[in-house]
Amino acid sequence: MMQLQVLLVAGTHGNEINGIWLFDEWNKSSFLINTHGVKTFKVIGNPEAKKAGKRYIDHDLNRSFQKDSFLSVNSSSFEGKRASELVDLYGETGENPCQIALDFHTTTASMGSCLVVYGRRDADLALASLIQNKLGLPIYLHESDQKQTGFLVESWPCGLVVEIGPIGQGLLNSRIISQTKLILETLMEQIHQVNNLNLFFPDNLIIHRHIKSIDFPRDEEGNIDGYVHSSRQSMNWQELKKNDELFSKLNGEIIRFEEDQPYIPVFINEAAYVEKNIAMSFTKKELWNLKKEWKQSLIDLIHQK
Amino acid sequence: MMQLQVLLVAGTHGNEINGIWLFDEWNKSSFLINTHGVKTFKVIGNPEAKKAGKRYIDHDLNRSFQKDSFLSVNSSSFEGKRASELVDLYGETGENPCQIALDFHTTTASMGSCLVVYGRRDADLALASLIQNKLGLPIYLHESDQKQTGFLVESWPCGLVVEIGPIGQGLLNSRIISQTKLILETLMEQIHQVNNLNLFFPDNLIIHRHIKSIDFPRDEEGNIDGYVHSSRQSMNWQELKKNDELFSKLNGEIIRFEEDQPYIPVFINEAAYVEKNIAMSFTKKELWNLKKEWKQSLIDLIHQK
Repeated sequence: MMQLQVLLVAGTHGNEINGIWLFDEWNKSSFLINTHGVKTFKVIGNPEAKKAGKRYIDHDLNRSFQKDSFLSVNSSSFEGKRASELVDLYGETGENPCQIALDFHTTTASMGSCLVVYGRRDADLALASLIQNKLGLPIYLHESDQKQTGFLVESWPCGLVVEIGPIGQGLLNSRIISQTKLILETLMEQIHQVNNLNLFFPDNLIIHRHIKSIDFPRDEEGNIDGYVHSSRQSMNWQELKKNDELFSKLNGEIIRFEEDQPYIPVFINEAAYVEKNIAMSFTKKELWNLKKEWKQSLIDLIHQK
Repeated sequence: MMQLQVLLVAGTHGNEINGIWLFDEWNKSSFLINTHGVKTFKVIGNPEAKKAGKRYIDHDLNRSFQKDSFLSVNSSSFEGKRASELVDLYGETGENPCQIALDFHTTTASMGSCLVVYGRRDADLALASLIQNKLGLPIYLHESDQKQTGFLVESWPCGLVVEIGPIGQGLLNSRIISQTKLILETLMEQIHQVNNLNLFFPDNLIIHRHIKSIDFPRDEEGNIDGYVHSSRQSMNWQELKKNDELFSKLNGEIIRFEEDQPYIPVFINEAAYVEKNIAMSFTKKELWNLKKEWKQSLIDLIHQK
């Protein structure tokens, strides 16, 4: 049986620096975070972008983990090469094989802290349920979005993204660092519990399931001609119902939400998503029963059965 | 007597876009803002940087208005050329001569709304006093800072910067747009009053006088190794007294404010100032009597005596 090893990544986006700070603090003071004996590797996802004070150099590293493109066009870009390098170094069959990847991000949106899982992988859902059970964090299930693919954690058998906001790009903030630390500690504690078969899985988990993303209103030339309405600004995780105000347009018009079924918006005004034509994403809140096979998948992964 | 003409600038920094939005709204709906018959020119300071979603292309446009460098090294940069162009088009002796320049900015710092004046020019102080009298805004007097020079408004006989925050770079926000609109309207109203010699100058004005800027703590290699202490985060305009916490360092150490005299910090965690080695700036709050010559200077300028 191989030893459990966990990859911890911060600065996958070079201007999201609070996780990097926490790693630096931890490097200086090795007892800062209790890993309960679990072996971890801490890496800066995109150190070149960090140096440049930018999200990325050529393109978004957290969209560069395309399974079939490591040897294709993608690999010629800076981030394509870095993605390959990280998988070679810390992938399941890499030099320092890690079974779990935890990727620490920040957002300019007023989201508080949340977890993001990509697709419905059993082990991801099991691990997320443990964290939700301890800290009450919302879980954003990102799926069915063909425009947004190639996320880092998808290249590991199990992986979660931690998102914390609001914080401006390139800024350090004591609250964001503390929140990052709490979630990292809780993740290590829970992974340790599974490793020890000391299991307290909840019966249910609450999922905010991604439905779609919407763009800003645009004029005929494609320029943004509407901003998030004042009553929706910062209202992440708050239900959006038919006829609620959504955008204020340049001509004074108010665009309302027209659909019959309510959605719950997230990532409202994430600055990095403007270039992705995303003003916000819509989710549906669902209560899911925790399935036995999810727990088993996480247990098997951690115990390498 | 020449007609009074006022230059209105937004997007001097390409990622501060709320003022540009307001200008666009105003272009669509000419009655949006009452200029009281005063002729205005609205320009985007740095349209190329706006397109690129960045603060600037080569260097900061709002440090590029160096009086003696329009024909020297500065003019070879994109922003150096743009500075010359704006002066040629709208300077006091330009194609469309403007006597007053108003430059609308945003900040990631939690500053609320404020005015910035550069140096102690009589007409600037008179105009700022009128706005403070109407809206109660703080006036940040930036002076004696040889590292920060070449501000746009300094190339006009009278000019103010309006700073509003907090807002992330590249983001639109209804509150910031409304605040920009209110201040612009008040400026036009007050300029009109002076133009009509309908004068209600206050007896005093409150100045936050720039003393110095301080850098983040840095390690021996020059890397930032401290962030703004949680008790100081967002506390712009709040007095900093001896022994107050200032920064938290990577090694856990707390750096306290050591000076005997208190200061009032502003621009705490302005994201664009990290590259300028500015963690925050210190000011002193002072009550100044309004001088007759300041009023006369503004009146003379507006009436071109």
